[in-house]
Amino acid sequence: MKDNFKFRHRLRVRWAEIDRQGIVFNGHYLTYFDVAITEYWREIGLPYPDAVTGTGADLYVVKTGIEYHASAEYDDWLDIGVRVARIGRSSMTFDVQIYRGSEHLITGVVVYVAADPATRKSVPVPARLCDAVCAFEPVDPRGTA
Amino acid sequence: MKDNFKFRHRLRVRWAEIDRQGIVFNGHYLTYFDVAITEYWREIGLPYPDAVTGTGADLYVVKTGIEYHASAEYDDWLDIGVRVARIGRSSMTFDVQIYRGSEHLITGVVVYVAADPATRKSVPVPARLCDAVCAFEPVDPRGTA
Amino acid sequence: MKDNFKFRHRLRVRWAEIDRQGIVFNGHYLTYFDVAITEYWREIGLPYPDAVTGTGADLYVVKTGIEYHASAEYDDWLDIGVRVARIGRSSMTFDVQIYRGSEHLITGVVVYVAADPATRKSVPVPARLCDAVCAFEPVDPRGTA
Amino acid sequence: MKDNFKFRHRLRVRWAEIDRQGIVFNGHYLTYFDVAITEYWREIGLPYPDAVTGTGADLYVVKTGIEYHASAEYDDWLDIGVRVARIGRSSMTFDVQIYRGSEHLITGVVVYVAADPATRKSVPVPARLCDAVCAFEPVDPRGTA
Repeated sequence: MKDNFKFRHRLRVRWAEIDRQGIVFNGHYLTYFDVAITEYWREIGLPYPDAVTGTGADLYVVKTGIEYHASAEYDDWLDIGVRVARIGRSSMTFDVQIYRGSEHLITGVVVYVAADPATRKSVPVPARLCDAVCAFEPVDPRGTA
Repeated sequence: MKDNFKFRHRLRVRWAEIDRQGIVFNGHYLTYFDVAITEYWREIGLPYPDAVTGTGADLYVVKTGIEYHASAEYDDWLDIGVRVARIGRSSMTFDVQIYRGSEHLITGVVVYVAADPATRKSVPVPARLCDAVCAFEPVDPRGTA
Repeated sequence: MKDNFKFRHRLRVRWAEIDRQGIVFNGHYLTYFDVAITEYWREIGLPYPDAVTGTGADLYVVKTGIEYHASAEYDDWLDIGVRVARIGRSSMTFDVQIYRGSEHLITGVVVYVAADPATRKSVPVPARLCDAVCAFEPVDPRGTA
Repeated sequence: MKDNFKFRHRLRVRWAEIDRQGIVFNGHYLTYFDVAITEYWREIGLPYPDAVTGTGADLYVVKTGIEYHASAEYDDWLDIGVRVARIGRSSMTFDVQIYRGSEHLITGVVVYVAADPATRKSVPVPARLCDAVCAFEPVDPRGTA
């Protein structure tokens, strides 16, 4: 796996995640992304959902994209690299890459928007999230988004 | 399908529900049971969770059992018979059977307990649920449980 | 729902598909896409996987994308519009839109590549698939891809 | 966790496994059982499905049962104890218990039958499986089943 991810999470493909083609069903990668992003938040000291408690904001997925370069199979160990690529006023973009050993299987993106849970109107990304991410790794400055 | 179910729900097996053996993964039947029981509540006029709103109780699964007589496969139409077999003071037992045409695939049971959502202490099954079920089909009398 | 989809499939959100935010987990939409595309193939007379039997090709997902405009919730009826947007030499692109009544919830795309199941090398999309799709609805001509 | 399981597997509850009641959906425990049993086979030196390759048999689930004592929640670490309780001529019974720390959440059972994959007729449990299990932990003798 290339060394451009400061954070990686490892998991093993489950039997129930394999479909009739003998490969991981295409939708389960979004579960893997979610698991790895959960661990990213924990790693930087802001386990979700405590990270947003009291901020008046929650994070909602507004966009996902996956490119499938090769198929993961039953029992494979997958290394999931996660990085915050960009923080905007109210959005955060995660880049995700999945490797099986040195083989690059999946490229993904998950975009979240910070919103008021009651109204679902977008609000600024809570400062504590920005601060923790930027303390962990270089991210495009917030103002440019 | 035997005619001893007054209520049946039909659904089609999804690609993502098939595992590497080419059959429905054993755990997905509990999702099928849940879908069919949801439709049972709707059929008798008490769509869940409105059925329990304001009663101070919610229903929690405390026991499930499945016998797998034969395997459902991709794209199969399944007929799911649901029946309330017994209502106790605080519990309700559903019998479930799944058929593919005339072939009996699955026998199942799901037991719910009525409990206070805050304390998780068991409480009596709300009367409106008992009444609706008993108006729909014969059930073992509540007092015997 | 806008009338620019000749094919639509309807399904109901399941309890097990709701996550802790009270909305459909973001990954389950790819299952919904898959279910709706399955029904698209059936509608045009080529139920998958029979559609590819004997062609030496199978279809593999190489790209998916989802934009989440609003959240589907428990028990919602969803209308899923499916259309083949483009057929290339070895790829097929499906556009998908999900509506709840007149409200547009989801925009998606699923790109398949035809490949030899043994070697996973791309091969031309089987002619019978192109023919059936083009007989059903106008699609960008194959040669332009 | 009580010390009567020689084998335990640990996993963390995923966001997507939580339902609208804020607890793990009842069916996902069968996925957890499956993951833990997979690891049991690996532990005793017979990773599935290699364990059955060349034996003319595969293992099919014929019965599952779950008692839900308390609910697992998001991000919980779960310890899953697995034990072969009994080996019959053609069947194997696994007892499973799930703990969160010292709290006992789930009691389960999974019964497999060895069968010919082509005919689905039951066949004797392959000797290599019996031998490996009995070398790992005491099990009811095969002859008594």
